[in-house]
Amino acid sequence: MSENDKEEGVVFEIAVALSKWGESKGDQSDEDDCVQVLVNEFRKKGLIVERVVGLQNEFVRLAAPPEILGKAAAELKFRKRTHIGMDFPFEWDEASAFVRLPDGSLFSWCERFRCYNHIIYGIVNTGKSIVVLKSDCTGVDWRPGESLLRKLEAMRIVKEVFPLHDERKRKQLLKSWAMNWLDFTSQPIDDICSYYGIKIATYFAFLGMYTKWMFFPAALGLTVQFVDFGSFQLLVLPFFFICQISWAVAFFQFWKRKNAALSARLQIYDLAGHESEYKSLRTEQSLSASPTELMKKQISDRMKEKASFQREEWFRWLMRLRNDAFIILSIICLQLPFELAYAHLYEVIGSDLLKFCLTAVYLLAIQYFTRLGGKIAMKLIKYENNENVEYRANSLVYKVFGLYFMQSYIGIFYHALLHRNFRTLRQVLIQRLLISEVLENLLENSIPYLSYSFKKFRTVRNKLKCEKGSSTGKPRPIPRIEKDYLKPAYAASIGQEIEDGLFDDFLELVLQFGMIMMFACAFPLAFAFAAVNNITEIRADALKLLAMMRRPIPRADATIGAWLNIFQFLIVMSICTNSALLVWLYDREGKWHLSPGLAAILVMEHVLLFIKFGFSRIVPEEPAWVRAARMKNVTQAEKMCSKQFLRSISGDEKCYGGKKKDE
Amino acid sequence: MSENDKEEGVVFEIAVALSKWGESKGDQSDEDDCVQVLVNEFRKKGLIVERVVGLQNEFVRLAAPPEILGKAAAELKFRKRTHIGMDFPFEWDEASAFVRLPDGSLFSWCERFRCYNHIIYGIVNTGKSIVVLKSDCTGVDWRPGESLLRKLEAMRIVKEVFPLHDERKRKQLLKSWAMNWLDFTSQPIDDICSYYGIKIATYFAFLGMYTKWMFFPAALGLTVQFVDFGSFQLLVLPFFFICQISWAVAFFQFWKRKNAALSARLQIYDLAGHESEYKSLRTEQSLSASPTELMKKQISDRMKEKASFQREEWFRWLMRLRNDAFIILSIICLQLPFELAYAHLYEVIGSDLLKFCLTAVYLLAIQYFTRLGGKIAMKLIKYENNENVEYRANSLVYKVFGLYFMQSYIGIFYHALLHRNFRTLRQVLIQRLLISEVLENLLENSIPYLSYSFKKFRTVRNKLKCEKGSSTGKPRPIPRIEKDYLKPAYAASIGQEIEDGLFDDFLELVLQFGMIMMFACAFPLAFAFAAVNNITEIRADALKLLAMMRRPIPRADATIGAWLNIFQFLIVMSICTNSALLVWLYDREGKWHLSPGLAAILVMEHVLLFIKFGFSRIVPEEPAWVRAARMKNVTQAEKMCSKQFLRSISGDEKCYGGKKKDE
Repeated sequence: MSENDKEEGVVFEIAVALSKWGESKGDQSDEDDCVQVLVNEFRKKGLIVERVVGLQNEFVRLAAPPEILGKAAAELKFRKRTHIGMDFPFEWDEASAFVRLPDGSLFSWCERFRCYNHIIYGIVNTGKSIVVLKSDCTGVDWRPGESLLRKLEAMRIVKEVFPLHDERKRKQLLKSWAMNWLDFTSQPIDDICSYYGIKIATYFAFLGMYTKWMFFPAALGLTVQFVDFGSFQLLVLPFFFICQISWAVAFFQFWKRKNAALSARLQIYDLAGHESEYKSLRTEQSLSASPTELMKKQISDRMKEKASFQREEWFRWLMRLRNDAFIILSIICLQLPFELAYAHLYEVIGSDLLKFCLTAVYLLAIQYFTRLGGKIAMKLIKYENNENVEYRANSLVYKVFGLYFMQSYIGIFYHALLHRNFRTLRQVLIQRLLISEVLENLLENSIPYLSYSFKKFRTVRNKLKCEKGSSTGKPRPIPRIEKDYLKPAYAASIGQEIEDGLFDDFLELVLQFGMIMMFACAFPLAFAFAAVNNITEIRADALKLLAMMRRPIPRADATIGAWLNIFQFLIVMSICTNSALLVWLYDREGKWHLSPGLAAILVMEHVLLFIKFGFSRIVPEEPAWVRAARMKNVTQAEKMCSKQFLRSISGDEKCYGGKKKDE
Repeated sequence: MSENDKEEGVVFEIAVALSKWGESKGDQSDEDDCVQVLVNEFRKKGLIVERVVGLQNEFVRLAAPPEILGKAAAELKFRKRTHIGMDFPFEWDEASAFVRLPDGSLFSWCERFRCYNHIIYGIVNTGKSIVVLKSDCTGVDWRPGESLLRKLEAMRIVKEVFPLHDERKRKQLLKSWAMNWLDFTSQPIDDICSYYGIKIATYFAFLGMYTKWMFFPAALGLTVQFVDFGSFQLLVLPFFFICQISWAVAFFQFWKRKNAALSARLQIYDLAGHESEYKSLRTEQSLSASPTELMKKQISDRMKEKASFQREEWFRWLMRLRNDAFIILSIICLQLPFELAYAHLYEVIGSDLLKFCLTAVYLLAIQYFTRLGGKIAMKLIKYENNENVEYRANSLVYKVFGLYFMQSYIGIFYHALLHRNFRTLRQVLIQRLLISEVLENLLENSIPYLSYSFKKFRTVRNKLKCEKGSSTGKPRPIPRIEKDYLKPAYAASIGQEIEDGLFDDFLELVLQFGMIMMFACAFPLAFAFAAVNNITEIRADALKLLAMMRRPIPRADATIGAWLNIFQFLIVMSICTNSALLVWLYDREGKWHLSPGLAAILVMEHVLLFIKFGFSRIVPEEPAWVRAARMKNVTQAEKMCSKQFLRSISGDEKCYGGKKKDE
């Protein structure tokens, strides 16, 4: 293919999809045409531009030489690691002071993406007069100071700006990761990080470690289920309960350690991510003054600033409290009765046909409720005035998880705790686990593929229909950039504005974790199901990302965010529910008698809760070597720069001291 | 007094107490005399020295001019805040770049104390030959490279090195703090910090806030005790329980916030304290090389270093685990039966005389056990290889608290939970609270005073006895420095090597907190007792520190350390014990029936535990303005120094790059 040859040298990373308006005009594009203007402006900014005509859309592919990226990075004031280990705002002139990535490039994909965005959305009309943009036949004014791309987006000429796959790296990853079935859980995390950004790499690192650790409770669950322990049978379930809780507590503590080590290692890919936090704090005052003037100002402003910070903090806290109270109340008052009504009706109704109808209605209704809940959550979050995009994502996760928690577990609680119907409980658990295993994995992978295939088919058919009239040559092949464009984006099922597809992937994991942990004593086999599911999940998710999705927009967060707290919450919940299950398992007559057995279970529950909250104090979250490396970097840098630097401060200070004496 | 006049200009801060050997020789001190050698060496170091002859001992008072201190600080590489907000190792030449304290001095008391120590223990024989020190009639060799002060300490000529009170500041504090009874809880924290160091200031800030917050549960407790709520009487105790737990949870969260704000404000007094943490990590490699060489070395060493760090971390973890297991097991296996035996015997024995004897024996025994426990804990800690002196202190606190916990509460648990003897329980609580209130406060203040008076009396008597033979003039007044020397040191009752008097003060607070919280439902009046106690405690502790103790050795830690975790632990314990108390209060017949009431209490317990662990997520530990100020300092400094600094790195890097290409 000719396209492949061209790509050899330059890797196009961003594409702009344009609607094909004036196709009838042919190729004679004049200089006033808005697309031509856009292309020219891109070229002026130093980008490498290529126009590709697809079957149904036109595309502009963009690549940037290192220098252009570097200058954009300097404008954005990216903090990057220098060779002495200290982080500094990037300067293009001093680029050699900064650490390069293992593949030799200066910027990670996440940083490059932000640079591209900065460049292409930074194209404004710098002249003083209005430029008239012609599109098809109408003309539109491009006013001074207006962003060209936003204007064209508003005019619907630019349909979308999206990141492009890098074919060479994609194929490498396909081979080394998605199709590498030999090793169950190990993955090339560094390559994933370099291609997809640090957030997705963290997800896969978590998934890998979770699956690897899952083998232990899976084996234990199989043993408990299938081996007869004779007279010790009564003690087996409590023992299993203690084991699985300890396992979960240890796993998450060690995950924190691993995450700390991982983010220390992957930090070079996305230090810029941490910058957003600094920016939001209003430090962008006039920094041109000398340090001593700053000092003066600082002291005089400090009290005022402190008061305003405190006011803001409390206001934010109150808003968050109000929102959370609203969400919790509406879940309890609206969703809980609905779910209980469904569970009760399902239990009461005898006819299978009615049951089936009821379930169908229920499934439709919860689809609608979830959407609605997501929308409400998004609206509430807008009022919360969160500083950071990741904070906002976390806020959404907490809110929406409440919804899913009720939806997924209330029915099971109903069967388990109120009706004490252990047979139904086990059936429901098996159904849910199998459904989540088979169906969700299938849906997850087939829906994007089907939608992509359908879109591709429609594009080709439309093209053929149009061309039938004019020419009769054989149909042109669909260009790869158009294929990329037709692929679905990696978006969340709700709250797309602030979350991406990771939301659904994590949600699936969390719901599975809750299912297997909270009812572990009722169904020890669940861990084995989950282990098998997760092994396939790793490769399926990889395949989905590599083959069926557009390249996702990279995120610079190096943790699993709010999900960690949700996992922890589920552990605590499962201590309580399993204790209740054990009480009800041993007390079949329903005497509710506080026998020594019940007392023992209560004591065990409290001990486990203590372990849960005490363990994090025993095993530190950050490995000693990570901490030591951090400290070392700081002290080394300080030692090296302090002398010359101090001189400059003290020079200023002497002037200042002199002035003060004069006053 | 002539002494006062002399002091006007120079503040002597350190004293060396010498034994008076050759008093008979009179004043003709020759140059070889070891005391004279010491004084000469002090003078050589630039210190201002004054010899004072007391009644029974001789003293050398020391003061240091700012320059001497500054140079010592530079040698110690103190990190200090500069005017631009960044922290740098101190340099005397650039002293004006560093922030001065509010009173105009460059170093805080803690920093000065460390400098003094560095200077006086840093006196070594720099010559190549052995110097013979004469003392009385014997001569001792002072070998090259040997520390003079340590030598003299080993020879028992130097009895002690101790910090001196600054009379002017002491009197000011006495007026503004200890004798200022007008305002119950407010204290001049900044002055305390400047005079005693940050750790003691933090203790008093905590005590003040704790007492202030205590008024609320005290009022509630009084209401619950004395108001009759009629038909709601049944619900009053659960309500009180919920209120006091919420109060405790909120208090400690807000204390964390206050502590963060406090340490941000008091940071200027003791930034040097943080340095110890850096030091212990082995960063002290050859730093003379260029950054690029460092880089090379860093990369090559990284894997090795990481492995060694991990090994060390795990080893330390195992040692700590072993020690904790040992302590816990020995408390459970040895102490628990002993305490239970005492409680049981006390319950069983009828005769009052026997009871009294039993209690006397018991009190003697626990004195011995506590000492023994402290010694064992100290030995175990030595194996733990803790990096930091404050870590070691925390480790001691945890271990010893286990002992005290058993000692203080097991008897009460026995009465409360096993015998359900609420009358005895209340009696015991009142006894303990009154004892702790009256007796401990009395003892705490009178024992130091009595011991001081006794020592002073003995000194004067000895002097008189000696002088009776020789001369008959009226007795010389005892010099103030000797009075200071005779005062007891601010030392912990156990583990003096790593803890000071704060240990006992905090222990008292913690035991009181446990007593009032864990049995709140049995005795709501306890909070009022505690509030009154704490109000007197503030002034009594202040008086003790100012008037009856030597000036304590300053500590640079800005938190209440392990005690915070112990308080948190006591909150969790009190949720459980109060739930149990409520169950037993409402279930007087002992039917152990899981009635709705019991179920409600269980649910309440779980909700409270959730609140306990959830609240810390809702209210952040660090106020927003503290965080913002920190960030601002960092970014400002980086912005200012980055340009020139980057150039130096990238220059080096270019050379390095060139070299690499050549290879």
